[in-house]
Amino acid sequence: MKVNGKEYRTIWMEGASVMMIDQNRLPFDFFVFRSENFLTTCDSIRNMTTRGAGAIGAAAGFAMAQAFLAAPVKNRDKFLLQAKETIINTRPTARNLFYAVDLVYEAGLISPKAAYEQAQQIAEKDIADSRAIGKFGSMLINNGDHILTHCNAGWLAFVDYGTALAPIYRSVEDGKNVFVWVDETRPRGQGARLTAWELHNAGIDHRIVPDNAGAWLMSNKRVDLLITGADRIAANGDTANKIGTYEKAIVAKHFGIPLFIAAPTSTIDLTCTTGNDIVIEERSEDEVLYQSGPDESGKINRIRVASPGSQAINPAFDVTPAKFITGIITEKGIIKPKKEEITKLFKGRINS
Amino acid sequence: MKVNGKEYRTIWMEGASVMMIDQNRLPFDFFVFRSENFLTTCDSIRNMTTRGAGAIGAAAGFAMAQAFLAAPVKNRDKFLLQAKETIINTRPTARNLFYAVDLVYEAGLISPKAAYEQAQQIAEKDIADSRAIGKFGSMLINNGDHILTHCNAGWLAFVDYGTALAPIYRSVEDGKNVFVWVDETRPRGQGARLTAWELHNAGIDHRIVPDNAGAWLMSNKRVDLLITGADRIAANGDTANKIGTYEKAIVAKHFGIPLFIAAPTSTIDLTCTTGNDIVIEERSEDEVLYQSGPDESGKINRIRVASPGSQAINPAFDVTPAKFITGIITEKGIIKPKKEEITKLFKGRINS
Repeated sequence: MKVNGKEYRTIWMEGASVMMIDQNRLPFDFFVFRSENFLTTCDSIRNMTTRGAGAIGAAAGFAMAQAFLAAPVKNRDKFLLQAKETIINTRPTARNLFYAVDLVYEAGLISPKAAYEQAQQIAEKDIADSRAIGKFGSMLINNGDHILTHCNAGWLAFVDYGTALAPIYRSVEDGKNVFVWVDETRPRGQGARLTAWELHNAGIDHRIVPDNAGAWLMSNKRVDLLITGADRIAANGDTANKIGTYEKAIVAKHFGIPLFIAAPTSTIDLTCTTGNDIVIEERSEDEVLYQSGPDESGKINRIRVASPGSQAINPAFDVTPAKFITGIITEKGIIKPKKEEITKLFKGRINS
Repeated sequence: MKVNGKEYRTIWMEGASVMMIDQNRLPFDFFVFRSENFLTTCDSIRNMTTRGAGAIGAAAGFAMAQAFLAAPVKNRDKFLLQAKETIINTRPTARNLFYAVDLVYEAGLISPKAAYEQAQQIAEKDIADSRAIGKFGSMLINNGDHILTHCNAGWLAFVDYGTALAPIYRSVEDGKNVFVWVDETRPRGQGARLTAWELHNAGIDHRIVPDNAGAWLMSNKRVDLLITGADRIAANGDTANKIGTYEKAIVAKHFGIPLFIAAPTSTIDLTCTTGNDIVIEERSEDEVLYQSGPDESGKINRIRVASPGSQAINPAFDVTPAKFITGIITEKGIIKPKKEEITKLFKGRINS
């Protein structure tokens, strides 16, 4: 997507370096971070310099390719297995990470070049999938719709174009009027920081909403549709996504408002029979207790926003049971969150 | 309640001054603000130096008494009517404010001393009501219970002891083990800042929870009971409370977890037939877009936490329909949120 008139991807490779838009510095500073080796790329995933299901997948694939490019002759196999292990352990929930590492590792057994090409292919596929999700998802959006989204599943969460925001981008490209309610998405504020930045950057009308205002908005009939992304989808349609999605899903169902999950099939993990099999990451309580941002002088400051004597919990995701999900928008079309429909998507495919 | 070993109320009068714990400086700084006239007291309500249904009621009553004490001989009636109007317009949602102003104004028609005494009496009644709510509410709490609360309806929200936290304080006094999940309560963070401060101060085990984690906690069976306060209760039991309460109520009902509203009968407004009659305050978007707190050096800093180009909405309350409420804990006992039971509470009373 375009930033200041120039076309950017969220993450890409230049030679043996992984280049990524630094999402910890957004929305206050647009900076491209260069990671010269797979360990630094792992750090970037862990500390969320790059984040979002698709971007994590691409980053992990690139990291695996970097490991192949840098692997020593001596103890080569051990080095690569350890590298794979390190990459896999950066974050536990997003399916795309494991998917990408497996594919690149397998290709790398042929040659480092094959690993590199496989990683590139995953990134290209991520973009193509996002565009297809945009096309299918836009059919759900009527002119004048008000759409609520949670967290950021825009182009910053993928290599380009995004998932939850893709149907919105496509609808606007097609000339529809769309308004977006942007859940703030505490504690990390991916909505207020990243989704709002994306929509402002694209000139799409939107307002940031405190997460607490969901039921108020919906009860006042100000939401036509919910669309969110996904970090992992189980074989039965249960969906792990940013903490708070489950709560919005229950509330949306109560008000009869449809909830669509937008995700490529690479997010679906058939080895998870239900959502109970999905590991939920718990992150540092500091993300709840502190906040960072520019003060009046523009200097980035980290302040405490909670009572000094208290601790917090910080589960990063929750699992929304399939029964709350109206449909899943994939690159192959829109399906019901049911085992039969999900399995059908994978007919003849090996990679799961 | 005790702070650093000394007994404090949230708000009280010293001569013609209103003294109040500055809740904008908490939890980082404990400071008692002195307001020497009713206009400054109005500012304190408006800018939330003092906040919470009962504390607002007491502050408004004290402000009305200050106006009587300061009223000039010339144009006295006009001055007092204007003062009443100014006080009433500080904040729109909390029932206690209007209740207190009416009572003190009526008493003041006899003499300024009567106004002062009526205001004192409202404050004393607020404390007695809170204690009674604690007594009744504690009967709902079993040893070992995990209780989720939203916003702050502790002693800081009343003159002393509080409503939603009163049953918890009483249970702990009675020797029960109680654990409290404290909703952060964005955007102003009254949970993370005030409830957490109160509980830490009282030595009660608790954790701050991002508002988004409610469904996750409840689905994991980590919540036995929800208790919140109320800003206004309609004749049919519909209850206005801090934004996000409605959402938690829907989610709690889904999981079969009881939700109790703790509030004195002075919060009930029989002139509101249903929740539709309750005015919801919308506050400045800046409360969503900015956050304040101490940086590493301890200096209070205000930082932007949202994308610079974007705007926000900030409804301060929502209305939870009675059907989501298990019961209302009042100073007269626990009732069902039904018109007949609510009306019965007021048999023989004039002030509504």
